[in-house]
Amino acid sequence: MPVDVVSTDPRTGEAVEVVAQETTPAEVDRLCAAALDAAPALDELGRVGRAALLRELADALEARRDDVVAVADRETALGTTRLNGELTRTCYQLRLFAEVLEEGSYLEAAVDHAGDSPMGPRPDLRRMLVPIGPVAVFGASNFPLAFSVPGGDTASALAAGCPVVIKAHGSHPATSQLVFEVLAEAAGTAGAPDGTLGIVHGLQAGADLVAHPAIRAVGFTGSVNGGRALLEIIERRPDPVPFFGELSSLNPLVVTPQAAGERGETIGRELVGSFTLGGGQFCTKPGLAFVPAGPEGDRVVEAMADAVRTAAAPVLLNEGIAGSYGRISDGLAAAPGVEEVARGEQPSGAGFAATPMLLTTSARELPAEVTEECFGPVSVVARYDGEAELFAAFDALPSSLTATVLRGEGETDLPLAVSQQLRTRAGRIIYDAYPTGVAVSWAQHHGGPWPSTNSQHTSVGTTAIRRFLRPVTWQGAPAEVLPEELTDGYDRIPRRVDGQLQLPRG
Amino acid sequence: MPVDVVSTDPRTGEAVEVVAQETTPAEVDRLCAAALDAAPALDELGRVGRAALLRELADALEARRDDVVAVADRETALGTTRLNGELTRTCYQLRLFAEVLEEGSYLEAAVDHAGDSPMGPRPDLRRMLVPIGPVAVFGASNFPLAFSVPGGDTASALAAGCPVVIKAHGSHPATSQLVFEVLAEAAGTAGAPDGTLGIVHGLQAGADLVAHPAIRAVGFTGSVNGGRALLEIIERRPDPVPFFGELSSLNPLVVTPQAAGERGETIGRELVGSFTLGGGQFCTKPGLAFVPAGPEGDRVVEAMADAVRTAAAPVLLNEGIAGSYGRISDGLAAAPGVEEVARGEQPSGAGFAATPMLLTTSARELPAEVTEECFGPVSVVARYDGEAELFAAFDALPSSLTATVLRGEGETDLPLAVSQQLRTRAGRIIYDAYPTGVAVSWAQHHGGPWPSTNSQHTSVGTTAIRRFLRPVTWQGAPAEVLPEELTDGYDRIPRRVDGQLQLPRG
Repeated sequence: MPVDVVSTDPRTGEAVEVVAQETTPAEVDRLCAAALDAAPALDELGRVGRAALLRELADALEARRDDVVAVADRETALGTTRLNGELTRTCYQLRLFAEVLEEGSYLEAAVDHAGDSPMGPRPDLRRMLVPIGPVAVFGASNFPLAFSVPGGDTASALAAGCPVVIKAHGSHPATSQLVFEVLAEAAGTAGAPDGTLGIVHGLQAGADLVAHPAIRAVGFTGSVNGGRALLEIIERRPDPVPFFGELSSLNPLVVTPQAAGERGETIGRELVGSFTLGGGQFCTKPGLAFVPAGPEGDRVVEAMADAVRTAAAPVLLNEGIAGSYGRISDGLAAAPGVEEVARGEQPSGAGFAATPMLLTTSARELPAEVTEECFGPVSVVARYDGEAELFAAFDALPSSLTATVLRGEGETDLPLAVSQQLRTRAGRIIYDAYPTGVAVSWAQHHGGPWPSTNSQHTSVGTTAIRRFLRPVTWQGAPAEVLPEELTDGYDRIPRRVDGQLQLPRG
Repeated sequence: MPVDVVSTDPRTGEAVEVVAQETTPAEVDRLCAAALDAAPALDELGRVGRAALLRELADALEARRDDVVAVADRETALGTTRLNGELTRTCYQLRLFAEVLEEGSYLEAAVDHAGDSPMGPRPDLRRMLVPIGPVAVFGASNFPLAFSVPGGDTASALAAGCPVVIKAHGSHPATSQLVFEVLAEAAGTAGAPDGTLGIVHGLQAGADLVAHPAIRAVGFTGSVNGGRALLEIIERRPDPVPFFGELSSLNPLVVTPQAAGERGETIGRELVGSFTLGGGQFCTKPGLAFVPAGPEGDRVVEAMADAVRTAAAPVLLNEGIAGSYGRISDGLAAAPGVEEVARGEQPSGAGFAATPMLLTTSARELPAEVTEECFGPVSVVARYDGEAELFAAFDALPSSLTATVLRGEGETDLPLAVSQQLRTRAGRIIYDAYPTGVAVSWAQHHGGPWPSTNSQHTSVGTTAIRRFLRPVTWQGAPAEVLPEELTDGYDRIPRRVDGQLQLPRG
């Protein structure tokens, strides 16, 4: 029997419309087969053709900006300013991947001509990366336009030449469906084959998708439990495929004593701005801030408390997140050694609003509860007395997407020591700023050891494309069967020839 | 109670000596802790220091060449010519990774200066790869000097700056222990910290190693079942770590009708040489050869049969492999639709010798049994009648490390079609040669979709290093805390600066 997929308004908690039915196993199978059929033609579009495709997708999204933002705001309550920013980011990312394709380094083209070696004659070997095949992308709840139907996973998979079947997040199905339709139509306009994009709704459909033989890789942004469940499905496949999960992150932040002394109040105010941004529903939310003991640190905490007390109650994304937030933040506040310092506005009436909270504890005996991510507008301040106590506390921390140091003017010794200590536990180390912004660029990395991610790869930045490519080496191949980029004399992309990196001549 | 680790002579099947005791849990823990302690100092050796380390290891192995080859031959029966070649290859590989370090591209250094973007101001972002931490390396039985204590995994992990704890293969413990001692002493001479290299013996010690919190990645060459067992241990870790397994490979090979017509007898003879090389115990052994129906194809099969009938019975590596080979090859020969064409020498007396076998079947109805790897000197010829039958048969094949096309003089149409069909199922496509040689070079790739490997990565060739590195991005970092390679003005390695790839100036 068909199960309705319902769009809910988190501001009221009311169901607004039926968007679709949950995707049946037969329909998942049809979409995956279509994706597999589309793969060769999408590859054959080539770098130029796919660059045009990505730009067409960006243009189409921008042309429907007002409609998309309106439905996303209705379903997520994130506000039109933030959602317009997300859409801009997503379009920028699509266009950046068009540049990545044109630049061509991502192919890692390498040519080793036949020659002698200490092991005897070496054959002609030519290597480059090729699309991995159809990719399943799981949209996240918290970025309906930047880590969902469109976002780093979809953009990088399409750039790589991989058809994408998206599992829409149940928290914003109408947004997902609208954006999917906009993208699918634009893909057709740009000459992409049918089956380049597909969408499924429903948890079971997501499980069926990950188990489908046509799917060659999975991109996922979500919880550790969700990621573990998908990994289990993958391990039961006859052919386990790569899974790229971005899962959970505490994002520790250190305020040095000098920084606290120089600008404690500013830091306090900004920190609250960062951990309540988007309702505290950022994977890069600073969930644990190390603030020095003593009067300088007190000023940071007092400024934080002041800001929290006057903070409005943000509307969270859905009932599940609101429920978890209430339960986990209350548990945190009640944990031994944790003290509640301030609460913000209490929500009134219906909907999924939540109370911002500020908690403190001691770095000397860090309670286990404070080392786990809590999605929502809460942060814990751990007061530390000296470097030894600070560094000892680091040993209790799980790995994170980010680690942040707020330092004093010209201060380098403690920031260096902190970043050396935290480098093994974080994928991005931030100085004198807050982790909640994640710029899309060539040098960006959004990842880190488990539980931040389950692989070394990133879902933000240009190297995200590598997740959806695999190397192939051609040995002794006649020129007629080689990809253009591996033929002798091709000089339009960077290549490594006989071990020497060469820039394009064009 | 200590359990002896015994070295056996496969030529006689007799135990020769007790090499060590199985490593206790406490000793595994001590070795892993030492590896973790060694990690920062190994990283601080820097690219130049680790290049010197790798060259010292190669020199030390070569200095003990005769001793190492003698004990390896006694334990593996692979013969001194082959084992000398393996040692040469391993030393070459260590020195090639020294070049990789000096060249510096492997760091993927990228600098994005602060600037404007469509999303507003973008901070200064600088990315490069850093060592992942201690690596567990599982030696394979079939390459005691090239995929064991030394080999692509150990060389690339040390190059990356990762301490290595090796699980010695039980098939050649004396070789493993001797080579380990040579390498560990040389590492000390080169200034590497204690704990840079460790070794464990015994299955339980291997399991303990993979479960140990200090281990940050695992490199494995072995069976699918062995790989699955280690993956299960990893999935039970609180922090599942990356696992890079090279597992199983059928390595299909296609002889085109034109090639069969032009040089059928040569191909037949060479094919037998390839599938019996090293006793048929190569991960790249051509296990299934597609040969055209009709008289040209008959000549290939007749030449193969002649060669097999006069082939000596190779001594296999150990009792387990010899037992499996007998069981699986007999099952293959008895499978419906499979015909035995020729057998080689019958082994006589003690030891683990095995009979070479040639089987045929029809590509039209490929029996499931022939699509699974059988370790040892057996290969199946599938006769095909036309391209449609050939391409349909490909759909039944698992993915492989390699796929091979033997083509006629100047022939390109069928080779191109074959390689397009097989590209999704293989990591290396070989023309007019045999897959059993795997050159170490910049453009090499030794991998492929499951079951060849469980990731996109390679264990042979310079990009093997990437498995043991993870990206870190520094945001807004003062120059004093940046790695040298990310500072402004550094020009000794290739870097991407503001999106532009730049070559070193030196």
